[in-house]
Amino acid sequence: VGLRGEQGKAPKRVVLISGGVGGARMARGLAEVLPSDVLSVVVNVGDDLRAYGLAVSPDLDTVLYTLAGIEGPHGWGIAGDTYSAMERLSEAGLDTEFKIGDKDLVTNLVRTAALDRGETLSQATVALGAAMGVEVQVFPATDAPVKTKVAITGGEWLDFQDYFVIRGNRDDVTDLRFDGAESASPAPGVVEAISAAEAVVIAPSNPPLSVWPVLAIPGIRSAIEAAPRVVGVSPLFGGVALKGPAHRVMKSLGLPPGNLGVLAAYQGLLSDLVIDVGDGTERDTLAGQVKLHITDIRMPDLASSARLARSVLEIL
Amino acid sequence: VGLRGEQGKAPKRVVLISGGVGGARMARGLAEVLPSDVLSVVVNVGDDLRAYGLAVSPDLDTVLYTLAGIEGPHGWGIAGDTYSAMERLSEAGLDTEFKIGDKDLVTNLVRTAALDRGETLSQATVALGAAMGVEVQVFPATDAPVKTKVAITGGEWLDFQDYFVIRGNRDDVTDLRFDGAESASPAPGVVEAISAAEAVVIAPSNPPLSVWPVLAIPGIRSAIEAAPRVVGVSPLFGGVALKGPAHRVMKSLGLPPGNLGVLAAYQGLLSDLVIDVGDGTERDTLAGQVKLHITDIRMPDLASSARLARSVLEIL
Repeated sequence: VGLRGEQGKAPKRVVLISGGVGGARMARGLAEVLPSDVLSVVVNVGDDLRAYGLAVSPDLDTVLYTLAGIEGPHGWGIAGDTYSAMERLSEAGLDTEFKIGDKDLVTNLVRTAALDRGETLSQATVALGAAMGVEVQVFPATDAPVKTKVAITGGEWLDFQDYFVIRGNRDDVTDLRFDGAESASPAPGVVEAISAAEAVVIAPSNPPLSVWPVLAIPGIRSAIEAAPRVVGVSPLFGGVALKGPAHRVMKSLGLPPGNLGVLAAYQGLLSDLVIDVGDGTERDTLAGQVKLHITDIRMPDLASSARLARSVLEIL
Repeated sequence: VGLRGEQGKAPKRVVLISGGVGGARMARGLAEVLPSDVLSVVVNVGDDLRAYGLAVSPDLDTVLYTLAGIEGPHGWGIAGDTYSAMERLSEAGLDTEFKIGDKDLVTNLVRTAALDRGETLSQATVALGAAMGVEVQVFPATDAPVKTKVAITGGEWLDFQDYFVIRGNRDDVTDLRFDGAESASPAPGVVEAISAAEAVVIAPSNPPLSVWPVLAIPGIRSAIEAAPRVVGVSPLFGGVALKGPAHRVMKSLGLPPGNLGVLAAYQGLLSDLVIDVGDGTERDTLAGQVKLHITDIRMPDLASSARLARSVLEIL
């Protein structure tokens, strides 16, 4: 069954709100089953950082690499990348706990060079996507700096990558802050894309860590609220995220367990929630709060991403 | 004839004042014939720039690469380097007129990462030298930013690399400025090394463009003036530099032609001047103004660099 112009109807315009690996795979699936001109991806920039002097945007790059089909085996970085630059940095006595592959470094160099000559992050992202042959529109949520800060037990505030990469996201997260979000504007085109969309899909990304920093930017949440359909895809399987600390962060922030916590994290934003076939027992708890859809939401490969994307589009 | 402890005497401590390629070759020659603990090289930083967001120090790297024996065929960059990063930058629509090889980029990344975490340029240079196995002490003239600015006919002031690389050093240079030099301090160890030296050698670098920005830093020129011997090695052959615009710049700045211009550029700083065998006819003009030494000063390869270094040391 073709989704591209099925029964003569124009394909629906979709905006995906995305964090890193899970969002990137959802994006790739949607890109597989939708014409590229009806899909836009709005990506979290709260994890962005300067490393080795370079402007690094982990989630944007994960989305671009995955859309280009060149992502690394763990979902981030570039497949087959080498680490000779990190070895050289390490030989020179520098801290290389935050590792970037040689090819990945070039992406960050392109971004840094563009920003240094006065381009915006949006413009740099367009250039990077074009160089990789990505046809889907990929937007940073904002061109302004937004820094996700994580409070851990004891009250210490950490930079996101300190919490996530350096400390291995083992700490209990007691609070979150998105520094700069309040005064940030959505990147050009983001609100327009959301307002023109028949559906906004919230990717199976970490709700507090990856999606909240997007929703914290004034104008984005309200644009999503006005969309005809807002479909959340759960990141949980039996109450646990397959990758990353979503379930632990949600718990330590006081959200309910399981998909009730996902619903709560989005505070009434979702018209629809897609959960995994293994979590059918949550049906009764969730009934009446949201249109519930139950399917296989695992995305180990492109075929499963495309299948999940088709399931999501069938909802609409 | 061994210079290392000849006749039981300790080898003389030598400081070389260096620009890029010519200075780097002189440094390599001196390093070949002197123990590494008696040679220091003080390098121009007036050409330093930010490119692609990275902190680039062209002369420091040329000296380090040449001392490590890994310099490129034209004297700068790294032998056998590739340019895939520049290709990627170019594909992304960025200006890559100032080209940096892939391996060379890593050097600049190491420097940038070190500066970004608060190290000085001196400290970054020590780390880079150590990673390359360079045993000779290599100092930036200063850790402070010094920017060589070039006025061309018509009065326009250009950044050094705009003049040198982008416009191909074809413009007539009517004036020079070394922004930041007046308030800069010599890098730690520079004045101490010069003060402890039996001889300061001024490399066959471009006097106005490469050596003046070193001499412009308060404390360096006076330390050199106090040295027992100050030996200049001419960059000219028949009044013309083998590489680069030294003779044209000297002329348009109003200096006399030939080695009289080199002497004038250093305003009485030199006790000795080494000129090329081909320029013996200048002997009469220069006589009485400086101790003159005539030898083959070309350095196409390591053997000739070492031979010239031996000739210079024999003067002392």
